[in-house]
Amino acid sequence: MTGKAEKGCFAATILTLFPDMFPASLGHSLAGRALANEIWSLDVRDIRSYATDKHRTVDDVPLGGGHGMVLKPDVVSAGLNDVADAPGRRIYLSPRGRLLDQELVRELAAEPGLVLVCGRYEGLDQRVIDHHDLMEVSVGDYILSGGEVAAQILLDAVIRLLPGVMGKEIGHLEESFETGLLEHDLYTHPRIWNGMEAPEILGSGHHGKIHAWRQKQAIERTKTRRPDIYRRFLAKNEENSGESS
Amino acid sequence: MTGKAEKGCFAATILTLFPDMFPASLGHSLAGRALANEIWSLDVRDIRSYATDKHRTVDDVPLGGGHGMVLKPDVVSAGLNDVADAPGRRIYLSPRGRLLDQELVRELAAEPGLVLVCGRYEGLDQRVIDHHDLMEVSVGDYILSGGEVAAQILLDAVIRLLPGVMGKEIGHLEESFETGLLEHDLYTHPRIWNGMEAPEILGSGHHGKIHAWRQKQAIERTKTRRPDIYRRFLAKNEENSGESS
Repeated sequence: MTGKAEKGCFAATILTLFPDMFPASLGHSLAGRALANEIWSLDVRDIRSYATDKHRTVDDVPLGGGHGMVLKPDVVSAGLNDVADAPGRRIYLSPRGRLLDQELVRELAAEPGLVLVCGRYEGLDQRVIDHHDLMEVSVGDYILSGGEVAAQILLDAVIRLLPGVMGKEIGHLEESFETGLLEHDLYTHPRIWNGMEAPEILGSGHHGKIHAWRQKQAIERTKTRRPDIYRRFLAKNEENSGESS
Repeated sequence: MTGKAEKGCFAATILTLFPDMFPASLGHSLAGRALANEIWSLDVRDIRSYATDKHRTVDDVPLGGGHGMVLKPDVVSAGLNDVADAPGRRIYLSPRGRLLDQELVRELAAEPGLVLVCGRYEGLDQRVIDHHDLMEVSVGDYILSGGEVAAQILLDAVIRLLPGVMGKEIGHLEESFETGLLEHDLYTHPRIWNGMEAPEILGSGHHGKIHAWRQKQAIERTKTRRPDIYRRFLAKNEENSGESS
């Protein structure tokens, strides 16, 4: 089959209270085609199906008081035990987790699969996190309605790196992230649009000068917009120049 | 209608090459109910419908050379002109943008709506960004297949803050973000699960001590996991103590 992964299928396993929220956007476009081509597979489990009382209770009040509800440890743990054979790291999407970045995405794309626990309400009982050694991952410093959309973002980022998904289209954006800078401004035809001319140098045909212009621009954009990334870029460059001297 | 917004409907307008990717997960759960209750509305426009040649071309090679394709300025601009009456800020989801955080989410939830441009390929022509004064927003430092899932994350975070969506369920997590610390560990019944006991203090009934324990724990978690957030927390506290002295 065209585009089929060489090393077998990447197995995504989801534990959620909203199984209907999958595959959602992952069923379309790049990820959707890769799913149809069996480059990755999707196994969605309803956390509620692991509840044992007649009301199918999944949550309870926090010990020690406070707002909201906490997912019951026995229920979530039964779900994780049920998918014990599923390959890959166990991840709990949580605003307290390690911030997802492209480095972590690359790491996760090298796994044979992932088991993603989507939290709702206040979150999981800490004993489940400890007992199952869940890695906590956050997709950003904002509050979502639940872990489902976070799981989709994470999978979208991971799936595009799986062998056979992007082919040679991976490139520029990746390179940009590798350099540790934001991307330079982009222009395409027409050269003059709506009275606005694209920078003259881009039409010069002088590849060296174009490269230098883009690099300078990427540095300027990064410095202004993301001083945090710029500091890391400088530190990395100093380190490299130290090594080569 | 129950839960209907008092100040009229929050209007989300999307420009995308993959209109079928909406509402996806936003049609379920919290956001889905709010959509059905007309707390927000969704208008999805296909960027391709604004292409004027017979092949419906939406992209072209980057001026100056390089990998990938750039969305044509005339096509995207025609789309933005077509939704000129749509209320709210114009946002372009882009890895070069301002990092989305809860402060920005609150800002955007106060708008009457949002117009979200979803990029694909390498991105937009800079002249469209300039001409339409697009605010560039990034949901995180990772590469996605396109702006669609980023738009969904942003809307998910914004929608839960709209009046009538969460009610008093908003609370703890918000408070946690307000304090500038990660949340403390959570526990629920049973007190002893799988041989693991929840911290004794949580059963003490002593609210003052429980609060102090949680605060100390939140500080520890933040210090270890997110030194960047912890530094901001310290700076903010110094500032406040400076003001009160």
